[in-house]
Amino acid sequence: MFRKFLTMFSLMLLITSVAGADDDGLMKRAQGMFKPIPLTPPAIEGEPATPEKVRLGHMLYFEPRLSKSQLISCQTCHNVGLGGADLQQVATGHGWQRGPRNSPTTFNAVFNVAQFWDGRAKDLAEQAKGPVQASVEMNNNPEQVIVTLKSLPAYVDAFKKAFPAEKDAVTFDNVARAIEVFEATLITPNAPFDRFLKGDAGALNAGEKEGLAAFMNKGCAGCHNGMNVGGLGYFPFGVVEKPEADVLPPGDLGRYKVTNTAADKYVFRSPSLRNVAITQPYFHSGTVWPLRDAVSIMGSAQLGMVLSEDEVGSITAFLQTLTGEQPQIVHPVLPPSTSRTPKPVLN
Amino acid sequence: MFRKFLTMFSLMLLITSVAGADDDGLMKRAQGMFKPIPLTPPAIEGEPATPEKVRLGHMLYFEPRLSKSQLISCQTCHNVGLGGADLQQVATGHGWQRGPRNSPTTFNAVFNVAQFWDGRAKDLAEQAKGPVQASVEMNNNPEQVIVTLKSLPAYVDAFKKAFPAEKDAVTFDNVARAIEVFEATLITPNAPFDRFLKGDAGALNAGEKEGLAAFMNKGCAGCHNGMNVGGLGYFPFGVVEKPEADVLPPGDLGRYKVTNTAADKYVFRSPSLRNVAITQPYFHSGTVWPLRDAVSIMGSAQLGMVLSEDEVGSITAFLQTLTGEQPQIVHPVLPPSTSRTPKPVLN
Repeated sequence: MFRKFLTMFSLMLLITSVAGADDDGLMKRAQGMFKPIPLTPPAIEGEPATPEKVRLGHMLYFEPRLSKSQLISCQTCHNVGLGGADLQQVATGHGWQRGPRNSPTTFNAVFNVAQFWDGRAKDLAEQAKGPVQASVEMNNNPEQVIVTLKSLPAYVDAFKKAFPAEKDAVTFDNVARAIEVFEATLITPNAPFDRFLKGDAGALNAGEKEGLAAFMNKGCAGCHNGMNVGGLGYFPFGVVEKPEADVLPPGDLGRYKVTNTAADKYVFRSPSLRNVAITQPYFHSGTVWPLRDAVSIMGSAQLGMVLSEDEVGSITAFLQTLTGEQPQIVHPVLPPSTSRTPKPVLN
Repeated sequence: MFRKFLTMFSLMLLITSVAGADDDGLMKRAQGMFKPIPLTPPAIEGEPATPEKVRLGHMLYFEPRLSKSQLISCQTCHNVGLGGADLQQVATGHGWQRGPRNSPTTFNAVFNVAQFWDGRAKDLAEQAKGPVQASVEMNNNPEQVIVTLKSLPAYVDAFKKAFPAEKDAVTFDNVARAIEVFEATLITPNAPFDRFLKGDAGALNAGEKEGLAAFMNKGCAGCHNGMNVGGLGYFPFGVVEKPEADVLPPGDLGRYKVTNTAADKYVFRSPSLRNVAITQPYFHSGTVWPLRDAVSIMGSAQLGMVLSEDEVGSITAFLQTLTGEQPQIVHPVLPPSTSRTPKPVLN
């Protein structure tokens, strides 16, 4: 009896230590490939985040008067209550027009190498100027935005405080700079995977660890690594096998339109997989809804392999550990329009 | 010299006491006609506001999945950052369609006698069911709303907690009841006029007091009285003189459509003037933008008098003292869609 107990006990010790060693190896490999999201917003080079600038950017992010209709704000497609994205296949904007691509999340976007699916904006400030002017999104222009903001004394004051060294602080550049600084606060730390990366082996369960191992072993982490588990480089979609036309519409040539280089046809910036489980639908086409299906498609299109149901399941389970603490954003109180404020134009 | 000083001194005393007496009289008259907004949300009869119910209503108010497109929420037209209203002439909804009337504010709406411009909903719960189903607004139906909410485990849990006595808590009635309880928290106390009503004679300046006196003397307060400075009764628009057709479109018969009574043609519920200075444009038609113009039109249409520039100016100044402290609302974090959640439908 006692001997049997001893055997059992040794066996248990052995299992525990083997599992421990495995965990240790997995954690070390992961730590070499990924980084946790920091607890506080990162500094942006050359753009110090004063409280006044963040406050202004916060107002502008929710400001529908940036759009011609005065109905659409950054928040419309990048909803802070919906993981920084929307629930749409593609962005829906002015006149109910549908944009060409799925709205990427603004959460943790500050950690991406560049912005937009094709990386055509080098940073969040440059990005912010795009949708304001896109005819299918906010359908506005910089001059009108400035006339509008200058008609609102609370904004004139907020710009002065945010950019105290500038004589004429209400500029389209400063609109974008303030939004960038606010967006840099939209980070989601403390995901289970972050806690794992910081040494808490119990933050992932066995299935999730299996998924993490598969994610690294199968090659997913080749394009999805670093702090954002993606977002750092450009890769052809369908590198091994072209997915269906609805997933990869032939007409959207991706980065080719930015660089005019043949090798960039169907090349996109790999998306960050941070909060991926709460930001469906997937891909630049926004045509795939279940996360499992997106994982399968990536297996065949990018890695040239049919992932088993178990592999898809465990990788999906791992991806769910990338959901971090969502930012708690107070809806800003926006200033009332004045007699000088342009009227909304819907057509 | 001393005598001269004494005379001056007596004169000053006299002026002060006369002004004081005037203030006192004005304040007493105002206190008999109006009431301050309370500092805490009012109780709704038969609908106790538990924290769980408020929390659920808060989520639902910001929930775009109440709409067929999954793009439009209560917040779209009743923006908590824009005085509980939008910046539009009339509500703009599904498919960029334009609704028939200007969106009334949800702020302090709990104090109105009934909801909608024609009073067709007896309370906020009944009101909340309207836009969800209106084809030009959210274009959804109760069955689809319930299928959607039941597909989201966080909502199923939130409904159970909000309505613990009910076996099947996720119902369309309960959606409306939770939204009502949340909306009852959207009150704006401590406006300068509220402080005046509570005895602080210095809360209004001389011009604003003149405006308040004119507001009562000219007859404005006949339809705009009580806690909400309006919102308590039904009155014909154009009782003395019909305004222009753009301000009072002949096709919108107002309360007549609700009661089918000839006397109710062009009858509307008088709007609350709380926060009126920050909720332009004005009237059910939403066609008048400057508050001064709205005051002038009311003078001729309702009172049959041409108000002087000074009178319009002072009444407008008084109306600006009705802007209260705006609620600070955190944007709720909404649950991610699941495989059972219906997809957004844009057409």
